[in-house]
Amino acid sequence: MIDGQPQRRKGAPVLRPSLTLGILGGGQLGRMMAMAAATLGIRTHVYAPEAESIAFEVCAEHTCAPYLDKAALKAFAERVQVVTFEFENVPTATLERLQHYAPHLRIHPSASALSITQDRINEKTFMAGLGLETAPFRAVDSLETLEEAVRAIGAPSILKTRRMGYDGKGQARIMTPHGAAEAYEAIGRQSAILEGFVSFSREVSVLCARRADGAVATYDVCENEHRNHILSRTTLPSSILPATARQAREAAIAIAGALDYVGILAVEMFVVGEGAGEHVVMNEIAPRVHNSGHWTIEGAETSQFEQHVRAVMGLPLGSTVRRGAIEMDNLLGEDMRRVPDLLETPGAHLHLYGKKLALKGRKMGHVTIVR
Amino acid sequence: MIDGQPQRRKGAPVLRPSLTLGILGGGQLGRMMAMAAATLGIRTHVYAPEAESIAFEVCAEHTCAPYLDKAALKAFAERVQVVTFEFENVPTATLERLQHYAPHLRIHPSASALSITQDRINEKTFMAGLGLETAPFRAVDSLETLEEAVRAIGAPSILKTRRMGYDGKGQARIMTPHGAAEAYEAIGRQSAILEGFVSFSREVSVLCARRADGAVATYDVCENEHRNHILSRTTLPSSILPATARQAREAAIAIAGALDYVGILAVEMFVVGEGAGEHVVMNEIAPRVHNSGHWTIEGAETSQFEQHVRAVMGLPLGSTVRRGAIEMDNLLGEDMRRVPDLLETPGAHLHLYGKKLALKGRKMGHVTIVR
Repeated sequence: MIDGQPQRRKGAPVLRPSLTLGILGGGQLGRMMAMAAATLGIRTHVYAPEAESIAFEVCAEHTCAPYLDKAALKAFAERVQVVTFEFENVPTATLERLQHYAPHLRIHPSASALSITQDRINEKTFMAGLGLETAPFRAVDSLETLEEAVRAIGAPSILKTRRMGYDGKGQARIMTPHGAAEAYEAIGRQSAILEGFVSFSREVSVLCARRADGAVATYDVCENEHRNHILSRTTLPSSILPATARQAREAAIAIAGALDYVGILAVEMFVVGEGAGEHVVMNEIAPRVHNSGHWTIEGAETSQFEQHVRAVMGLPLGSTVRRGAIEMDNLLGEDMRRVPDLLETPGAHLHLYGKKLALKGRKMGHVTIVR
Repeated sequence: MIDGQPQRRKGAPVLRPSLTLGILGGGQLGRMMAMAAATLGIRTHVYAPEAESIAFEVCAEHTCAPYLDKAALKAFAERVQVVTFEFENVPTATLERLQHYAPHLRIHPSASALSITQDRINEKTFMAGLGLETAPFRAVDSLETLEEAVRAIGAPSILKTRRMGYDGKGQARIMTPHGAAEAYEAIGRQSAILEGFVSFSREVSVLCARRADGAVATYDVCENEHRNHILSRTTLPSSILPATARQAREAAIAIAGALDYVGILAVEMFVVGEGAGEHVVMNEIAPRVHNSGHWTIEGAETSQFEQHVRAVMGLPLGSTVRRGAIEMDNLLGEDMRRVPDLLETPGAHLHLYGKKLALKGRKMGHVTIVR
């Protein structure tokens, strides 16, 4: 479905109370996922390497071990029936090993979906292959190939590491053709992608949930404001035209389908052009629940976290209907001074993640207002 | 406040991330309370005697020990800063012992509030002392005093154990004056209360939150349907008259104030009379979050669970504004067959508690629809 309600189906699987969902990653996304699973009566087992993982505080069991610890992975694989993850940088070797130890284990999303989205070149090539518009891009693996790419794409352009980038990490902007060497140094001379600069009016994203049987559900397009490359605010409804919103939702559905994806994915897009020329240009795919979807906890009939759990557990998808006009603000370390006020603001739904240190730029929580 | 928003205050305490809330009791109320605390970034430590406690699955730490295990209570008291409980039958000796081990520990609600509401005679006497109407009642401690009470109050009337009753347990109805002996046998010849039968048109309840500084907030009056003495359905808005609703909310506020209560309490009431004669008669006080308040999770700006956590942690109370027309159904063991359908019902917010066995009459979950 593009909007409205997921289709009703016959013979949907029943929740078995003995099921345990394994979650790789112990940050706020894993934490909110575990809480959504608990709401449906599903036990969770969180696996993460960091002793201070905040998701450990809301799960039935946890394992604190490196992602490639064979004994720990084996024990984990034997104790869960379904595995998912909260972030795209989990090693694909971890997923392969889990599957090896427990051949019947269901792992969603799949290692193949992950391997495409973990690499910016693969990701962009994949989207272009679906006929979706992206920024012009070139692979870079040396200063020479970077200089060649800058000549082809022009400046301004953005150099990004192929792998492991998020929240603007591993990126350098090239403002003139002479900036190539400096930018290449800045990202640590790694394999990279050069992307042409897109002159956009707004940034939007679409969350799409997909089940193994192909059933899909998308949420309303949301508008995102970033500050220092970190999401600052998400608002709905978006001011884009209905036709643009439809194009955005259809693009997300096409991506999820082509990846044979199971779970929630988010596609970040740029809005370019005006009037009849308005359209979206694909930016990035996040193969997971996404910060720009936190508004769904209070703002949609089914939160992205519950929707992801439903999808990976093989349950029917829930309604994605929006419940009002939405404003979701991230609370970074420096925003924690807003907390006392937010606690007294009627209708402000405050979410704090329980992180001990309010470091500058660190995501400490978020707040959603639904009107 | 009777309705609307809590008053804003200056100098509200800030959430300290190192705080741990201790919760006595490991059932669904403790579970949902722990999840609400986690949403505010507050760690929880659940203490319960049952190994299969479902609240253990969503907390940072847990202790599985009897309520009078001194060593376990001492260790618990030293690891938490605030203690609350999910049910009214926690021994007051447990609270006294915790306070003894950790004199600075804040325990909310207080042992004195608990001791009044744990005993039906004390509870009714307390409410009558506030000038609130209750059913006529008499204390019973022998067959002779019961027969005397039946003569005074008449039949039909209801015999209830003084202590430890909930969901209709420990109750027997006396339909004729000759039924006294049989009823006294049925409740096990315990200390009891005989209550006159109230001819009511509807059962309603009011949730009231109160902070240590006296700030209060009540939720909209909800209408409750019981089946076999167990709550079956809660609906809002109630069809009672605005003046009756105001009387109900004021009664709950008076009760909370007189108990110097901190946290959420629920007052169950009967609606009697019609038109200008319509009014409420007090039934029971539950010194805790309450099944008839589960609708607040999606149906109010602040859930009863978060509100309780706010109150006991000394945080500002949240808005109690209702978000629509509400229908909350309890899911008992025999209702679990509805789950597949509910998972496919748009806008049905399904909550399952993760209990392993779907026994008849056992509260397995609930579902809320907000329109």
